Amino acid sequence: MKAVVLASGGMDSCVTVAMAAQEYELALLHINYGQRTQEREFRAFHDIADFYRVPDDHRLVISIEHLARIGGSSLTHLEVHDAEKESHGIPNTYVPFRNANMMSIAVSWAEVIGAGALFVGAVEEDSSGYPDCRETFYDAFQRVIETGTKYETPLRIHTPLIHLGKDEIIRQGLALGAPLHLSWSCYKNEDRACGVCESCVLRLRGFRRAGAEDPIPYERYPDEGLL
Amino acid sequence: MKAVVLASGGMDSCVTVAMAAQEYELALLHINYGQRTQEREFRAFHDIADFYRVPDDHRLVISIEHLARIGGSSLTHLEVHDAEKESHGIPNTYVPFRNANMMSIAVSWAEVIGAGALFVGAVEEDSSGYPDCRETFYDAFQRVIETGTKYETPLRIHTPLIHLGKDEIIRQGLALGAPLHLSWSCYKNEDRACGVCESCVLRLRGFRRAGAEDPIPYERYPDEGLL
Repeated sequence: MKAVVLASGGMDSCVTVAMAAQEYELALLHINYGQRTQEREFRAFHDIADFYRVPDDHRLVISIEHLARIGGSSLTHLEVHDAEKESHGIPNTYVPFRNANMMSIAVSWAEVIGAGALFVGAVEEDSSGYPDCRETFYDAFQRVIETGTKYETPLRIHTPLIHLGKDEIIRQGLALGAPLHLSWSCYKNEDRACGVCESCVLRLRGFRRAGAEDPIPYERYPDEGLL
Repeated sequence: MKAVVLASGGMDSCVTVAMAAQEYELALLHINYGQRTQEREFRAFHDIADFYRVPDDHRLVISIEHLARIGGSSLTHLEVHDAEKESHGIPNTYVPFRNANMMSIAVSWAEVIGAGALFVGAVEEDSSGYPDCRETFYDAFQRVIETGTKYETPLRIHTPLIHLGKDEIIRQGLALGAPLHLSWSCYKNEDRACGVCESCVLRLRGFRRAGAEDPIPYERYPDEGLL
């Protein structure tokens, strides 16, 4: 049976792909939304897909960059949104309800290729107040799939990382032989990870706590106190 | 309070706009998906928006034509889908779960502009077996909005036509002064409605049953027996 996996190219989705690969034939979906390191993540996506020998017709890359226009409004409360997010290294193309947009695309594809599962590497801990990373959101989306598709046995959403911390995600990834060396988490750089953005620090802290070495190259490392 | 209205430019969405205009400040969203009469529907959308004096920054046009690639698969069951739909005049760019994709875009925009309502002119009778036109689907999507957005008072989905027949929709549209003469329903033509495609026949039958005259020009009229 096939599983569609939302694969950004980051560490969480890399481990999610490894988990799905245990039981399913992989169909990997990569969605661009105008993020700064889009090119690098695109490469990571294909590197991970190559590692798992996913054929070309089971890879789909869709851009929702056009949705960023929604966020191009000059309304004040959006500008606040942007400023908040920019400081976390996420580009000012933030779109509310983005995960619902991504899930909808994933379900459309899943229905066309007859997939029985949809994996997404969402982590509640990372949600930073964005409600569409939480389990309740995915439970509700499951019901939308049940009411809005023609499946006889409905497509099931799997969120295997939802309650894990970064160190547990890394431990599970290592245990499954996930190609963490091919994943990309840095928000800033595309050659050597910067080592200081929030995403790099979370990743390095996770490896430290898991008692393992991060295999990707870093430009520099954060202060020991942060790890 | 603002309402986002999904406005294809067809008769149902025209009446839905008229209903929303009774109580809300309008924000009209038009979504293209590569349909044959895309240009004509785009014009109808703007004509209806002009009629209700909707300012430019409260109109949004988004293309999800790229999603049609999902349907471009050579898998057999999709080709059956296409053949079924083609015979009803809908182009072979049919995408499963399309309404969830549209609703997700609408919610993203609604959150950015602070809209309190989201109107969609879905009609169960028209669903032709596609489950994402049914009330249960919209009820489930309401829950996704409640779990996946930051609204304190959640955005409410309104589907005022969901249980109406075409004649009732037309009667309500006439009662509200909806600009039915600006709407476009024909799947085939862009100048004078063909009068014979399924959509034209349903529309003309609705007008006949409502005891009214359809104000748009027709190339020809269907056999009396069909009305």
